[in-house]
Amino acid sequence: MLQQRSARLLSQFSSAPSRVFTPAYLRCRRAYSIHADASVGTKIQDIDPSKLSITKTTTPKDLLPPEELVFGRNFTDHMLSLEWTASQGWLPARITPYQNLSLDPATCVFHYAFECFEGMKAYKDKNGNIRLFRPDKNMARLNKSSARIALPTFDPDAMIDLIGQFVKLDSRFIPDARGYSLYLRPTMIGTQRTLGVGPPASALLYVIASPVGPYYPTGFKAVSLEATDYAVRAWPGGVGDKKLGANYAPCILPQMQAASRGFHQNLWLFGEEEYVTEVGTMNLFAAIKNKETGQKELLTAPLDGTILEGVTRDSVIGLAKERLEPQGWKVTERKFTMKELADAADEGRMLEVFGAGTAAIVSPVRKISWKGRLVECGLEDNVEAGPIALQMKEWMEAIQYGDEDHPWSYKLA
Amino acid sequence: MLQQRSARLLSQFSSAPSRVFTPAYLRCRRAYSIHADASVGTKIQDIDPSKLSITKTTTPKDLLPPEELVFGRNFTDHMLSLEWTASQGWLPARITPYQNLSLDPATCVFHYAFECFEGMKAYKDKNGNIRLFRPDKNMARLNKSSARIALPTFDPDAMIDLIGQFVKLDSRFIPDARGYSLYLRPTMIGTQRTLGVGPPASALLYVIASPVGPYYPTGFKAVSLEATDYAVRAWPGGVGDKKLGANYAPCILPQMQAASRGFHQNLWLFGEEEYVTEVGTMNLFAAIKNKETGQKELLTAPLDGTILEGVTRDSVIGLAKERLEPQGWKVTERKFTMKELADAADEGRMLEVFGAGTAAIVSPVRKISWKGRLVECGLEDNVEAGPIALQMKEWMEAIQYGDEDHPWSYKLA
Repeated sequence: MLQQRSARLLSQFSSAPSRVFTPAYLRCRRAYSIHADASVGTKIQDIDPSKLSITKTTTPKDLLPPEELVFGRNFTDHMLSLEWTASQGWLPARITPYQNLSLDPATCVFHYAFECFEGMKAYKDKNGNIRLFRPDKNMARLNKSSARIALPTFDPDAMIDLIGQFVKLDSRFIPDARGYSLYLRPTMIGTQRTLGVGPPASALLYVIASPVGPYYPTGFKAVSLEATDYAVRAWPGGVGDKKLGANYAPCILPQMQAASRGFHQNLWLFGEEEYVTEVGTMNLFAAIKNKETGQKELLTAPLDGTILEGVTRDSVIGLAKERLEPQGWKVTERKFTMKELADAADEGRMLEVFGAGTAAIVSPVRKISWKGRLVECGLEDNVEAGPIALQMKEWMEAIQYGDEDHPWSYKLA
Repeated sequence: MLQQRSARLLSQFSSAPSRVFTPAYLRCRRAYSIHADASVGTKIQDIDPSKLSITKTTTPKDLLPPEELVFGRNFTDHMLSLEWTASQGWLPARITPYQNLSLDPATCVFHYAFECFEGMKAYKDKNGNIRLFRPDKNMARLNKSSARIALPTFDPDAMIDLIGQFVKLDSRFIPDARGYSLYLRPTMIGTQRTLGVGPPASALLYVIASPVGPYYPTGFKAVSLEATDYAVRAWPGGVGDKKLGANYAPCILPQMQAASRGFHQNLWLFGEEEYVTEVGTMNLFAAIKNKETGQKELLTAPLDGTILEGVTRDSVIGLAKERLEPQGWKVTERKFTMKELADAADEGRMLEVFGAGTAAIVSPVRKISWKGRLVECGLEDNVEAGPIALQMKEWMEAIQYGDEDHPWSYKLA
């Protein structure tokens, strides 16, 4: 709410030109001081699901054969959209046929990357119910992301309600089989049509949905990573922990570089210490034996601002604490270095390494190229996944597909 | 060209889902290795200005009174657009009526910030000629920006030719008075319509134009800055030196914070040393007397990857070396700290501080809030600009408006 209010009050700033401050800006700034002190103001609207309007398509799409589904390439019949303005707040939500956005070429999303998004999935369970997985985590993160770039925030429960209605309307697109789901992409963009650099006075929140198949249709395939030391994805005090568009485009070139040398993804290191942070666009977990005690440890980088706060990451940690610690494991969020991993590999203490993200749940890692050597990550040549990765995928899917009753699974009414 | 080719070859990657790598990705990666080794391939088109098509508006706009012009709010009758595809390269340029872009909601510019831009101006000289200012610098920087985010590059001379034709067509929008100009916004966006994180297989380069008035219509007004120590704009190995949309949205909140405490802009410091980098969205210059020698020094941060490579910055340095050094000044690009500035102020060695950018040319600074104190920047209370800032504005405008013949001024034929 505070964020909404600040954005509203400061929207007048957006006439400030790029790279400078106008006399108009100075006048507005003074006006802001006055407004900010006033405790009364126009009440602006939060999201109200009861005001949803639905316009159904008159040209429903044919369903693709499940085996032809490609991530994020084909979308359902409809989309959910909500406009926001600084003066009115959130306007009534609309479900419409999937359609192009028509935007002035001066719209701020094209120039200053006022954009953030989420990735989440809807699943069909064995009884035909539709389930979301921890949608509250995605909505909380979207609010954090949007607030960081002066876009509006919203009531997360109201938004989950709307997403649920949208998913139900297009539920025929969710293939009824294990491993299949409907990938949901909530996206918020700034829509102000001026080139001044300032908080957008208008925004659009929309959700599109793409049916997707299993990530590894024929079983896990372990991947090889290249540790990136010449480019930095995120840093303390930056925005690498938010799901902003800004964090993605700059990552493509290092991925292409890694690919050109035969690696599937790059692994982002940070600092002279070469802390292990993220892999490509996933969080990373390493299972090693403690050098002193021999205890099995599941490590992942801490939320220090340099890694994305992955929902899958959080879920893996939660399940590991609940189900692996009783088996003698230690689950730790702490900084760890590439050298620690290499030492574990050299000393026979490396158990396994895997990425964690919404699309694949877990993605086992075979080896990491680092400083001219290959760090083997504990997999035998003919094995494509370690036991923890396999176990995690099983546990997660049991919850996601409703085989196991669990508070993380959100069944649509 | 290499960039174009890589983007083309790798475009098949873009079906890779967010945060993971598919088997399809792995197959494509192998395909890439093969392609990359092949020395022959389809020749893809660079920009060819002779293929420009022009569709004039049938509803020309009324010109606004010059005093009503607001930066980046009103645009001319037309826009220049060029589409690029990975398979064909640059398609023929088009000048059309200014119009909305119609884009699929899955378009990658909305999700992953595939976007970069330039800011430059066209001026009318006293003989009615139209002049650009160092357009080669803007095109070179746009190519650097686009290459860094896997967008295509282009022949800069061809693009300057097209921009010239566009500006001439809409030249009636350039007010014929000192201080007025036509702000040009070349923008490149990725237009691929899939959610896979990878190099876009299509892009759009467009230019829109906004008539603007003098930055300080009634003379300079010195500004106050707040040094930001809680957020970090850029990092070595990051992309802070490129003109990417990604660098802008995250800067709004610190600017709003500074504004809420009564400052016009924030000043970005870097590291424990608190190096002075940029102000808001401008480069920064400080003129101080050397502690040992008493020599006058004009300082600005070096191009170490943490500051934008400003065209105005480069021009100020060039003019200062040519015209101030013979007067005994020393012009230096080096790291300098906030403490150095504070010491200079405390010891009576502070001469003046100013920002430098396309919109205002120079923007004098009165004071900087830092660690609970105000560092005064050398201006008497009743003075709004120091002599170097005044001199620089005069020199720059003489070149921009063609009063002085100079290779930086590019007269349209």
